[in-house]
Amino acid sequence: MIENVKLEEAQGDILSLVIQLPGESVPLAQALGRVIHNDLYATNDLPVCAQSAVDGYAVPVSGKEACFRYLVKESLLPGQMPGFGIGPGESTGVVTGGPLPAGAGAVIPCESVKCDGEHISFRGAISLGDNIKSQGEDFCKGDLLARGGDIVNPGTVGVLAAFGMNEVVVSRVPRVAILGLGKEVVPCSVAPLPGQIRDCNGPLLAAFAQRDGAFVTAMETAGAKSPSNVKSLLENMLWQADMVLTTGGTASGVCDQAMNMVRQTGARLLFWGVRIKPGSHSGAAIYENKVIISLSGNPAACAAGYHLLAAPVLRALQGLGPYPKRLSAVCKNSFPKKGGPRRFVQGILSCSRSGLEVTIVPGQKSSMLRGLLNNGNVLIDLPAGHRPVEAGAKVQVILLNPCAHWEQ
Amino acid sequence: MIENVKLEEAQGDILSLVIQLPGESVPLAQALGRVIHNDLYATNDLPVCAQSAVDGYAVPVSGKEACFRYLVKESLLPGQMPGFGIGPGESTGVVTGGPLPAGAGAVIPCESVKCDGEHISFRGAISLGDNIKSQGEDFCKGDLLARGGDIVNPGTVGVLAAFGMNEVVVSRVPRVAILGLGKEVVPCSVAPLPGQIRDCNGPLLAAFAQRDGAFVTAMETAGAKSPSNVKSLLENMLWQADMVLTTGGTASGVCDQAMNMVRQTGARLLFWGVRIKPGSHSGAAIYENKVIISLSGNPAACAAGYHLLAAPVLRALQGLGPYPKRLSAVCKNSFPKKGGPRRFVQGILSCSRSGLEVTIVPGQKSSMLRGLLNNGNVLIDLPAGHRPVEAGAKVQVILLNPCAHWEQ
Repeated sequence: MIENVKLEEAQGDILSLVIQLPGESVPLAQALGRVIHNDLYATNDLPVCAQSAVDGYAVPVSGKEACFRYLVKESLLPGQMPGFGIGPGESTGVVTGGPLPAGAGAVIPCESVKCDGEHISFRGAISLGDNIKSQGEDFCKGDLLARGGDIVNPGTVGVLAAFGMNEVVVSRVPRVAILGLGKEVVPCSVAPLPGQIRDCNGPLLAAFAQRDGAFVTAMETAGAKSPSNVKSLLENMLWQADMVLTTGGTASGVCDQAMNMVRQTGARLLFWGVRIKPGSHSGAAIYENKVIISLSGNPAACAAGYHLLAAPVLRALQGLGPYPKRLSAVCKNSFPKKGGPRRFVQGILSCSRSGLEVTIVPGQKSSMLRGLLNNGNVLIDLPAGHRPVEAGAKVQVILLNPCAHWEQ
Repeated sequence: MIENVKLEEAQGDILSLVIQLPGESVPLAQALGRVIHNDLYATNDLPVCAQSAVDGYAVPVSGKEACFRYLVKESLLPGQMPGFGIGPGESTGVVTGGPLPAGAGAVIPCESVKCDGEHISFRGAISLGDNIKSQGEDFCKGDLLARGGDIVNPGTVGVLAAFGMNEVVVSRVPRVAILGLGKEVVPCSVAPLPGQIRDCNGPLLAAFAQRDGAFVTAMETAGAKSPSNVKSLLENMLWQADMVLTTGGTASGVCDQAMNMVRQTGARLLFWGVRIKPGSHSGAAIYENKVIISLSGNPAACAAGYHLLAAPVLRALQGLGPYPKRLSAVCKNSFPKKGGPRRFVQGILSCSRSGLEVTIVPGQKSSMLRGLLNNGNVLIDLPAGHRPVEAGAKVQVILLNPCAHWEQ
């Protein structure tokens, strides 16, 4: 085990051991937001044959039309196949998406023709292919529909439905269990006695993990439980989940419960302590193929640790890209603190006329929850020994999730 | 009923009749992504009393400290209340988040002291309040925690948990039913016969509605069902859902099934036909307090109609702001088509060094699905009679959902 590692080293240590979860077949109707497991290709042309693009009249196009008057030979109903062809001066009523009779070169929309008994007439120009969807116009057989690692969005669902893909293979949902270790921490449903505090990190981490595609199998607090009971709790979590997050009990003082508990399960410690603020009291371990990440008990530090260490694991488990984007942005306000270790500050990224801007949100103390209320979408990455950040300074940011705030 | 209305008139007609859904109490753990119903305020100060911000030693601060050597009077365990106070030259071991003994003015972190039997010594400056979280530092009783109309994000969950709000009142989930009316349309799970096509609009609309916070109660196709059976289907949907979406059967030709079906339920038609492309064949009706929106059967037109007419209803039902943002952006590529009615083109908004840019995605024909594969985040709003759009032109865009694509 290495102590006080560099962040990238910590991330690399964990991610080198994460294996993408297997795929599972789910009904298309349940695939929204899941991650495609393998590339998917068109199994046929779409449309499968030429179709009318409008409700109207299919007509032949020779390029030598003398007049635009046609006998209406028949009118096809939706779903009806034409059992005939059309010749010069003949037309057939067709419907949007419907097949065309042999000999059809274009379709004239209903609203553009004048009906006259059994005939229609039309004023205007007609070109070959007008209002006809050609075979394969939308997709050709073999076209890529979705790439492994893509998140299924509504458009994906519509396209896969059009090809009759009623089941889709997506990465299995990562399972996450969460254990609060602070002895003074009670479940948030319990009224705390003097000296106790409510568990807010459990619900916070559960919500982060859910948003990032995971299923939360358990959320518990150790409280006053005996060490052997806490060990059992942790072992149970390791059995049911792909990743166990612990919070609290990570301070370097007398009560470093997290490190001891993790060690006692037989898990292999990867590192303990990361050279960042907040979140320096983070650690990670591996038990078989399960990841254990110990996060600080201070809420803002717990959140930063989640974003920097746990979220990348959830991405890797699902086969998503290894880590969210890094961008540079202009800081809209100032941050007076200086020096110390590499620091991560919660911010809101937005787009102005002059490009990306980031606003530092109030409530940045690691013990504070207030900063989290703003639904910040980036962590601003200030290097070790940084100077105070002044408004207008260029800073590096790490994008936390695909949601963004736009403004002009 | 009015025909061929202006888009804003169509939206206004519908939204003037939409009533926000009532609130319902859900467990906090299930509130993520839901919409807060009423403003929520802090019920107490947080922290409730002064606490240590670190594991360390609480010491008195008089401003006249001669030397920094203290007798360690006791060491408090997590959750333990101090039953004593400290005087000059005395200290108490305290834990992060733990209460402080009377007389404490600051806390010195564990890692900064030297232990020497029953004493600790420290080199450095101490100021009143160092490493102490004061009462109400994070939130004061009465502070606004979440506003009615806010979407619950992970930070909201963490904060509400800290205040013991285990249940939260959110807007009831809107219920949406979807009916495909084209006679040639078969469920996407059925292999189409010649002349038939698979229903892709149903799954597409269901996915849009789910993403926008709705629960889909039913997704059916009318196919070859008799008019009275389709009427029953529609009536059943009106009974179970807050909004019914129909697709297809809206062309102006011989088979305007949608308009007839909607009329037969006894619903009041609000308008039929909107002066936009694609999606001109859209209509809306009201049955009691249920909204019926009829969308085109062409997939891209169906999607545009959803975004412009149905999504605002889902927002209003949940108590979200009435309509997504309008922005102006520079178009990165060209769109050769010109003239005709007001046109909506699918695009991807991104942020460059010079501000907002939008890329027109390929596959814009109303019959095509390809354009939907790109997960476009805006509709570009081109006015009636517009000229071809050239790369570099300024265009108006309507933001479709909170996801955005960033680049630099």
